[in-house]
Order: sequence, then C-alpha cells, then structure tokens
Amino acid sequence: MAHEDVAIDETDRLIASNKVEGTAVYNRQGERLGTIYNFMVDKRSGKVEYAVLQFGGFLGIGTENFPLPWDVLDYDPDQRGYVVDIDKEVLEKAPRYREGEEPRYDRDYGREVYSYYNINYPY
Amino acid sequence: MAHEDVAIDETDRLIASNKVEGTAVYNRQGERLGTIYNFMVDKRSGKVEYAVLQFGGFLGIGTENFPLPWDVLDYDPDQRGYVVDIDKEVLEKAPRYREGEEPRYDRDYGREVYSYYNINYPY
Repeated sequence: MAHEDVAIDETDRLIASNKVEGTAVYNRQGERLGTIYNFMVDKRSGKVEYAVLQFGGFLGIGTENFPLPWDVLDYDPDQRGYVVDIDKEVLEKAPRYREGEEPRYDRDYGREVYSYYNINYPY
Repeated sequence: MAHEDVAIDETDRLIASNKVEGTAVYNRQGERLGTIYNFMVDKRSGKVEYAVLQFGGFLGIGTENFPLPWDVLDYDPDQRGYVVDIDKEVLEKAPRYREGEEPRYDRDYGREVYSYYNINYPY
C-alpha cells in the first residue's frame, strides 16, 4: 500500500471498510481466530450490526462465518489486527454458519448473537 | 456469485459492505456518477459516517473521491445500483479529494460535507 493511502484508510476516529476486510482477528491469548470477511450494515441507520469473522476452509469450502457485534472488536496496532476477548472454546459454540446456510439476520437472530457475547442488542 | 451467496450479501434490513463496494451510483436523471469505493466507519459507534463515491480516472490516476453521507444513498433494484438526488453540476462543486490529498476527516470536515448535502451532521 502506498504511503498516501494510509491516511484515507484510517484516521483517529474513522476506519475504511476495505481496510478492515481481510484483517486478522486474535483472541487475548494471541491465537489467530480468522479474518474479518465483511460488515453487515443496517440500511436505514447506517450502523454496522455485525463484523463477520471468517475462519477455516480452503477456497471457501468448509469456511465458517461468525457474526460478531462491532463492540467486541478492538484494534491492536502491535499485532496489526483486531483483538477480541473470546476464548477458542467460546467461539467453538458461538453462532456461526457455513456458505449456503446463511441465517435470516432478523432481530431474533440479532438478539441470539449479541446475548451470546453478553452485549445488549440495541436494534 | 453463487446463488447461495445472495442471502448473506443482503437481507431486508442489512447489506454487506463488500456488496456495496464497487456498486454503481446514478443520479435521478439516470446518469452514472461513479461507484462506491468504501465506507468510512466511526470506530467507536460502528456508524457509517460516509460512503465514498469514486469517479473517473484510470488505474487510480486522476480518480476523485466524494465522501457522501450514508443517508443520501437509495438502492434501486431496477438499476442494480444506488441513486442519489445530486445533479452532476452539484457534484462538480462537492467536497472531494484525489489520491494522496486525503482530508483529515475530522468533525469540521464532516460538518462541511454533510451541510453541502443539506444533512444534519450528527457526530
């Protein structure tokens, strides 16, 4: 990435969606959990409801997607990735889906996902 | 895109960031203004502060970026793109930047951009 691009990708307050996509995610123990695949954005409010963590698989086969509430992600400049306070054991039981088995992403699903991470679902 | 991917890219309420990136943007006259390059997201609130419209250029040379308030974008399924109520003459005078001339994206800039499109800057 050219030096000039850095400013536009990130400021003190803002971060670019295409910078976050593909960024590694670690837990507090430094284990690599996967990468951010994309954001799911509320069309009306413009609020990011989930950052989707993608994990495993090869060429999309066997890949699992874990929707995470935005608030669980903390960026760590040292690791050049996001850190989440989620043990691997917790992630193993977390709401997730495979390609072709997507959830409806309705509010019931939102409450399920957010409550799994002990975050109030505000939508 | 495989059929199964459609559900995850978009639901009634939510849209995936990587679906919006690269989507065409038209004005009400049906003129193609450019494509969405990325979102700029508030790190704390998770709110999309801008969708960046990219316009012109070749291989990034001469490209201009127009940060747009999220609220000015309406998706039109018929055109498979976003429609904004902005005449080309208005866009010609709109806040924009070239590669390497990025703004600081501070709140003064936010107020400037939002007020240009007659939208209250809520940050």
